[in-house]
Amino acid sequence: VTTRYWWVNHNQTFRQEIEGGYLWSPKREANGARSQFYENMRIAAPNDVVLSFAHTQIANVGHVSDFALSAPKPSEFGAIGSNWAIEGWLLPIAWHTLRTPVRPKDIIEQLAPLLPAKYSPISKQTGNGNQKAYLAAIDEAVLQLVARESGDDGLLVPQPIDTRFADIVNSIDGIIEKHIQQDDSLSSTEKEQLVKARRGQGVFRSNLGQVENACRVTGITNQQLLIASHIKPWRACITAKERLDGYNGLLLTPNVDLLFDRGFISFTDDGQILISPKLSALDLERLGIASNWKATTKRFVPEQCLYLAYHRAEVFLQ
Amino acid sequence: VTTRYWWVNHNQTFRQEIEGGYLWSPKREANGARSQFYENMRIAAPNDVVLSFAHTQIANVGHVSDFALSAPKPSEFGAIGSNWAIEGWLLPIAWHTLRTPVRPKDIIEQLAPLLPAKYSPISKQTGNGNQKAYLAAIDEAVLQLVARESGDDGLLVPQPIDTRFADIVNSIDGIIEKHIQQDDSLSSTEKEQLVKARRGQGVFRSNLGQVENACRVTGITNQQLLIASHIKPWRACITAKERLDGYNGLLLTPNVDLLFDRGFISFTDDGQILISPKLSALDLERLGIASNWKATTKRFVPEQCLYLAYHRAEVFLQ
Repeated sequence: VTTRYWWVNHNQTFRQEIEGGYLWSPKREANGARSQFYENMRIAAPNDVVLSFAHTQIANVGHVSDFALSAPKPSEFGAIGSNWAIEGWLLPIAWHTLRTPVRPKDIIEQLAPLLPAKYSPISKQTGNGNQKAYLAAIDEAVLQLVARESGDDGLLVPQPIDTRFADIVNSIDGIIEKHIQQDDSLSSTEKEQLVKARRGQGVFRSNLGQVENACRVTGITNQQLLIASHIKPWRACITAKERLDGYNGLLLTPNVDLLFDRGFISFTDDGQILISPKLSALDLERLGIASNWKATTKRFVPEQCLYLAYHRAEVFLQ
Repeated sequence: VTTRYWWVNHNQTFRQEIEGGYLWSPKREANGARSQFYENMRIAAPNDVVLSFAHTQIANVGHVSDFALSAPKPSEFGAIGSNWAIEGWLLPIAWHTLRTPVRPKDIIEQLAPLLPAKYSPISKQTGNGNQKAYLAAIDEAVLQLVARESGDDGLLVPQPIDTRFADIVNSIDGIIEKHIQQDDSLSSTEKEQLVKARRGQGVFRSNLGQVENACRVTGITNQQLLIASHIKPWRACITAKERLDGYNGLLLTPNVDLLFDRGFISFTDDGQILISPKLSALDLERLGIASNWKATTKRFVPEQCLYLAYHRAEVFLQ
């Protein structure tokens, strides 16, 4: 696995993102156009290194601790980015504060030749941040220059990954659950069912039981060994109907549930499994998928395909 | 799998157990002696049928929806059973209320010959509940008699299992989490770490990382695919130290985590896997354990063995 190096311009959301241990961006520009700087959020992978640039200086360096996940705009952003879409990419990062911050403006002559020709995060003339840049690819040499200037070699050492995915999902889900509990338009029964659906229980699970009866990958039918997993994740659902819809679920063995939930696998509409290139063949074999998997010939019904399209586009790691 | 039939005497806790969808008993009598009526809680298996006897009548019949789990005395018992140990067996049940309740006293002549000689739940002479009886094994003929008398055939039909384990554990854990949040003797950092440990995150996970580095069953080392699982469950831990102790954890692949958590597998002190007779060979193979498992020769250290002894005695399904 090759380590990539990144530079993020995040004046507006700097404090929240450093404290929260992540980066967050919309998926597209306000006008709906694709942005390479946002696409980079999905290219970044565990162990990649990110230079944080805010308020004219680089004061923090981070290691990506997990792949980006589709997540609502963090509530701690408040009014910032009110024109941004509610759903974006959240990239978990373990940040490290530099002993001495580095001002790119002060070293622009050494820095400029190392910056990329296209999608440079700052102007090679002025050292100011480029207007539209967010997460930009840089050369390893930029990191080495910053390390030298700050006198902080620590940032060159690979950090142990502390898995943040579960923490982050739990915190996002917790905020959504609070909103549900405070929503006066819902009855207490509806609230209970929506909250139970978060853990694959209650009405959601019984609705799902009308649609699916076994894990499509392992063939297991023993309900004690199956997890009722949302296709479009609970946190990404917009309506109560989506959260409780039996067509928005699959019964999955725990290993398969983890792979599906984290986007390491997905399914085609005709029931074939899709395996992400980001999952190693050895891990896949150790998870018992390669050896155990029997191709399911059971096509998904159209109601399921709508949710699967979301999963392939927004969850699956391509 | 053979269906077993049971009779429970639960005057005191009848309302709570019917509403809550479970049975709960201490593990031993107040004087520490073993009781067959409590041992039966661990023998009962999914799909078994239970007649509920309370206030001189049988008004409910239930289907066991999961194996018993070690669980604290339900808080809704209040002052009831204040001499019972805090930790007991909780057996998840899907209850069904009879159209017409049946009074054993009224049919004692037909009933008496069908009742067991030893460990009968009621007196064959008077039809009153026997003092020490809780969950007693009965013959299928008793169920058929009750069905005839109540005119309710529904109770003879096997019910679909709605898996209650996750619901019940979540509710027990939620109550414990509330107690932790309200405990003035803990700092806010300690509270946060104890709550994070519930989901295998935070300090517990990093402590565990000092002790274990791979799943002992699949050999997976990729942290993204591993769950930090408590050996002695989080809900059963008495002290903060136990909840955060790295020696009280294993890094497990999700399938293995589920099996270990639900007591379908355990480990000997020298690292051999123990497989419960309650798990079918087909399910085991489909979970990829049989084909994938490489015997680990890595003995557990003494600190881990203390927790493993608890797991084998209180969690493992024998």
